[in-house]
Amino acid sequence: MLKVGLLGVGRIGGVHARTIAAHPGSALVAISDAIAENAETLAAQHGAAVRSSEDIIADSAIDAVLIATPTDTHSALIEAATAAGKAVLCEKPVDLSLPRARACQTAAAATGQPVMVGFNRRFDPNFGAMKAALDAGEIGKAELLSITSFDPAPPPVAYIEVSGGLFRDMMIHDFDMATFFMGAAPVAVSAFGSSLVDPAIGAAGDVDTAVATLTYADGRLAVIKNSRRAAFGYDQRVELLGSGGLLQAGNMLENSVVKSTAAGVTGAKPMHFFLERYMAAYEAEWAAFVEAVKGGTPVPITLDDGVLALAMADAATQSVQAGQPVLLADILSA
Amino acid sequence: MLKVGLLGVGRIGGVHARTIAAHPGSALVAISDAIAENAETLAAQHGAAVRSSEDIIADSAIDAVLIATPTDTHSALIEAATAAGKAVLCEKPVDLSLPRARACQTAAAATGQPVMVGFNRRFDPNFGAMKAALDAGEIGKAELLSITSFDPAPPPVAYIEVSGGLFRDMMIHDFDMATFFMGAAPVAVSAFGSSLVDPAIGAAGDVDTAVATLTYADGRLAVIKNSRRAAFGYDQRVELLGSGGLLQAGNMLENSVVKSTAAGVTGAKPMHFFLERYMAAYEAEWAAFVEAVKGGTPVPITLDDGVLALAMADAATQSVQAGQPVLLADILSA
Amino acid sequence: MLKVGLLGVGRIGGVHARTIAAHPGSALVAISDAIAENAETLAAQHGAAVRSSEDIIADSAIDAVLIATPTDTHSALIEAATAAGKAVLCEKPVDLSLPRARACQTAAAATGQPVMVGFNRRFDPNFGAMKAALDAGEIGKAELLSITSFDPAPPPVAYIEVSGGLFRDMMIHDFDMATFFMGAAPVAVSAFGSSLVDPAIGAAGDVDTAVATLTYADGRLAVIKNSRRAAFGYDQRVELLGSGGLLQAGNMLENSVVKSTAAGVTGAKPMHFFLERYMAAYEAEWAAFVEAVKGGTPVPITLDDGVLALAMADAATQSVQAGQPVLLADILSA
Amino acid sequence: MLKVGLLGVGRIGGVHARTIAAHPGSALVAISDAIAENAETLAAQHGAAVRSSEDIIADSAIDAVLIATPTDTHSALIEAATAAGKAVLCEKPVDLSLPRARACQTAAAATGQPVMVGFNRRFDPNFGAMKAALDAGEIGKAELLSITSFDPAPPPVAYIEVSGGLFRDMMIHDFDMATFFMGAAPVAVSAFGSSLVDPAIGAAGDVDTAVATLTYADGRLAVIKNSRRAAFGYDQRVELLGSGGLLQAGNMLENSVVKSTAAGVTGAKPMHFFLERYMAAYEAEWAAFVEAVKGGTPVPITLDDGVLALAMADAATQSVQAGQPVLLADILSA
Repeated sequence: MLKVGLLGVGRIGGVHARTIAAHPGSALVAISDAIAENAETLAAQHGAAVRSSEDIIADSAIDAVLIATPTDTHSALIEAATAAGKAVLCEKPVDLSLPRARACQTAAAATGQPVMVGFNRRFDPNFGAMKAALDAGEIGKAELLSITSFDPAPPPVAYIEVSGGLFRDMMIHDFDMATFFMGAAPVAVSAFGSSLVDPAIGAAGDVDTAVATLTYADGRLAVIKNSRRAAFGYDQRVELLGSGGLLQAGNMLENSVVKSTAAGVTGAKPMHFFLERYMAAYEAEWAAFVEAVKGGTPVPITLDDGVLALAMADAATQSVQAGQPVLLADILSA
Repeated sequence: MLKVGLLGVGRIGGVHARTIAAHPGSALVAISDAIAENAETLAAQHGAAVRSSEDIIADSAIDAVLIATPTDTHSALIEAATAAGKAVLCEKPVDLSLPRARACQTAAAATGQPVMVGFNRRFDPNFGAMKAALDAGEIGKAELLSITSFDPAPPPVAYIEVSGGLFRDMMIHDFDMATFFMGAAPVAVSAFGSSLVDPAIGAAGDVDTAVATLTYADGRLAVIKNSRRAAFGYDQRVELLGSGGLLQAGNMLENSVVKSTAAGVTGAKPMHFFLERYMAAYEAEWAAFVEAVKGGTPVPITLDDGVLALAMADAATQSVQAGQPVLLADILSA
Repeated sequence: MLKVGLLGVGRIGGVHARTIAAHPGSALVAISDAIAENAETLAAQHGAAVRSSEDIIADSAIDAVLIATPTDTHSALIEAATAAGKAVLCEKPVDLSLPRARACQTAAAATGQPVMVGFNRRFDPNFGAMKAALDAGEIGKAELLSITSFDPAPPPVAYIEVSGGLFRDMMIHDFDMATFFMGAAPVAVSAFGSSLVDPAIGAAGDVDTAVATLTYADGRLAVIKNSRRAAFGYDQRVELLGSGGLLQAGNMLENSVVKSTAAGVTGAKPMHFFLERYMAAYEAEWAAFVEAVKGGTPVPITLDDGVLALAMADAATQSVQAGQPVLLADILSA
Repeated sequence: MLKVGLLGVGRIGGVHARTIAAHPGSALVAISDAIAENAETLAAQHGAAVRSSEDIIADSAIDAVLIATPTDTHSALIEAATAAGKAVLCEKPVDLSLPRARACQTAAAATGQPVMVGFNRRFDPNFGAMKAALDAGEIGKAELLSITSFDPAPPPVAYIEVSGGLFRDMMIHDFDMATFFMGAAPVAVSAFGSSLVDPAIGAAGDVDTAVATLTYADGRLAVIKNSRRAAFGYDQRVELLGSGGLLQAGNMLENSVVKSTAAGVTGAKPMHFFLERYMAAYEAEWAAFVEAVKGGTPVPITLDDGVLALAMADAATQSVQAGQPVLLADILSA
């Protein structure tokens, strides 16, 4: 039984608490949060103790920590937890600063402890089935990837201001999906962005609508589209053209009911947001972490993946500012 | 906290154990099963005790029992449990004998205890959304209902022989769905059946492919189609034509991936069988039971519903034998 | 070049005029209609002459006639035209009287002239692709056929009164489709019908909502559902469960546009009515007739098929009145 | 009756011949083609005369010409025909040389004759319905357009070599679609391209897989994806995210049949190529031209539109070569 401490119980922390508790191979033994009340409610529900992050990390009876605290604490907590001999699953992004993330990567690597980054979408059953079909050669060689990722509504500007911007906060998921499907890092990132949804987002120096094109060394291409607003809900689709066909992973719908009236033929909307759409992915993510840690096998998403996605986000951010493509090598050697 | 004893832990009993344990308002305290090993495994998993059904029913500290034993024990267990002051959720069908079911109905009613029959499909989110749209008047008045219900593959003939036949074992779910959507009992049932899938089923005196037409007092119609075999999996669809439009609840698919190649455009199959397709329904069913029992409100599916569905199944069985429609009134007054 | 006379240019006659004129192997040379103005407009458009039906049939320079006059004239015109050595394509139904249709069948057969009955749906590309898949063994052996056929809105009661009733006027198409897919005549027809759409239809002695179940000698089953009203348009679907899978032919939609908003995900309605939905079928039907007549090969739908469909309609009509199944043999030997 | 001369009867010329002949307001009176045999076959079929392009243009009895000759003759023929007082419908592109196209634009404008450019996709009923929904405000303000346009298979390299390259030959359709939906010319074009499908295309200096991003003055964005090969056929989809929702126009399928077997749920492929998919669009395009010419109203797609699309193609071509965005203003002022 893997004994787990959960650091941070915001919106996503609550999901993790349930997932850790429900997994037959893990036990949620301790919870920390800056807001004591949040931690206490969840702890009572799951029979866990409320403790400080420091205490949890220092407790040699705890095998692993799941880090779901604010982003600016991730690197330090990863370093402390791995130094204390713990396995770590950390929410994305690793950090908003690429140098800081790379320092963390080096420090954690030195401990030899497994650190997995929570790019949950790799564990979505739909994207997983699509990847399996690709790996099985069902559409030949991948050539042109297209990712559509629209949120239902923009977050508060206060969140935007500390988020690192759309590319590091939102599109970073899609950058990792591109790596997942293309199996390589791109050579260059060309990004275009505007503030069309909310002028306050533009005023805060960020974009809310963006397109990025990734070019790969062998000529393959990927396009990512993001918007902070889709009036119909959470739009999460991936399609990949290969030499032998096309794979498409569509949205999951709220239900399968179709109504036909004089007004048209109407079906359900996509599941509203990430907690609904990716619930199965969070469970599968945790199961993969537990299996890797217990089996002593490599975790499926590493700090290297986290650093790569962050570098792509930095390249995209610079590309919008510069109005031209940015080489990933220039970002990584900066 | 509702303290619950689970009687019978076959395939479906395992689902119920998990659902009872996961619900915040109920606790699984005791399990019985004819095969001790099955009970012990589940009991260990959920921290419940293994006891006999008699002991569980006699234990005044237990508030409710969920009956998932073989059908021929249902009536007696319902009677015993209600007599012992317990709330009961019983798997369908109530009994294979209509007179026995009606005796049970009378006996249970005399105790005043709530008895809910496990027609889980009423709690499927898709059928629920469809019913909500109907009740909201979105397609006007219901006129013509059509239910398609195909199993992936026939059960062993040994099961068929004790099942009561397709109408009492399989189509009984659809009879209840018809009542759910049409809001009334039919006047007559006309059924047609054949053994096309497996000659051994025909040799056992049962059919494996069947159509039933239900006629209602106000002229409305319903058609139910059943087959014991659909090569592509579990096919569970309902559609309802109303004066103002059509509602259709389609299958739930294994995933949302579509592959387009020279061979065609291929999507996922329906979720394979009832445990996958109706998992959410089992959870919602249990939640509804707990809520009704705790709140002292009527359970949403009663023994009356169970008896009605069984009477419709009897009518269908007789109709196939007689080669003509059978009045429900004749069945109920027999 | 097949020289063709068109008898009758109501709604469907106009379609036929265009189809005959557009086919490279046929020429529309003469048109008759009780309403001279209708005939003249179409004749001017296509460079044809307006003549009486008698004149057209008597003209030895005309090779074939297409009969699209009122139903009660079909038999006599078929007899006259075949006696005059013409090939005939006649709209359905052959007649409202089964004895009269059978007399026509005998008389026409004696002339040796080809007579094709216009069950246009056999030529719909969708149903055709479905039949081809069935014939290719893609779903194994056919077991359970289901036909849904809803009109957008009921015709005027004045039409209903001379139509022969829903089974002879509307469901007769579906009876022929059943023969097309099942490849055999049924043993018995069990029909259920009500007047739910318009009380005036019931007052006229007809039904507007109906279900018929066909049973076949080898145990296979077919179900047909009809309604005179679907608020969303013309609903024309067929599905066939076989030992190895399911084939479904869905509706053709007005366009492929899908709109996703806060109100839901809305697509186009089905093409509104038979002229739109079956335009390609009318063209293919005519092409098949021309090809058979020119090639001296059998026409693909014969008077036998027309008589069979009518007999099934008679059986259904009697079944609703009698409240029990009617054997096709009893109808045919009456 | 508009008397029409058809110049050029290659693959697309045959479609135009039929469309002109079938329209009640136009007559196909003369045909020219470099290959006399092609012209003669079509002329015989439609009762037209075979003449030289010069003769046709010089004939004052002819009202309009449809130019479907090789691209390098378009400008000269437009100039000659308009100078001769004819209305012109010319296939895309106007020219491969932007200066030449602009000279033609000036010359034609001086004559005052209507010249329409054959961007047929604007007349596709699906894209038309989507545009109508946009114009009706059904998704609010357009923000992010996405066009997917894949051909079934690459043309011969000999064709590629004289085609002007993917952007001028293939994506030019999508550039016009972007203008159609966005209602404005973009500020800049950023294109990325590779030769992944056929190395011979790369050797010929062209790309076969490409992505272009268009940026608009008000911050809106459009993305176009092209591939010369889609193993499953002709993939033609457009989607547009607006402030109030999403519009998607999907592929037209070969038929509506769905087959469900143990291997999955398989539907028909998209209609194979442009002649099938856009047949209705060609008819509507011609009807719009005839209506505008007869009514003296402006043609719906002008030489200005043709020049704009060509300028966007030039910008994209330069962008791939330069590896950075190209301003449309720089192209137009070159």
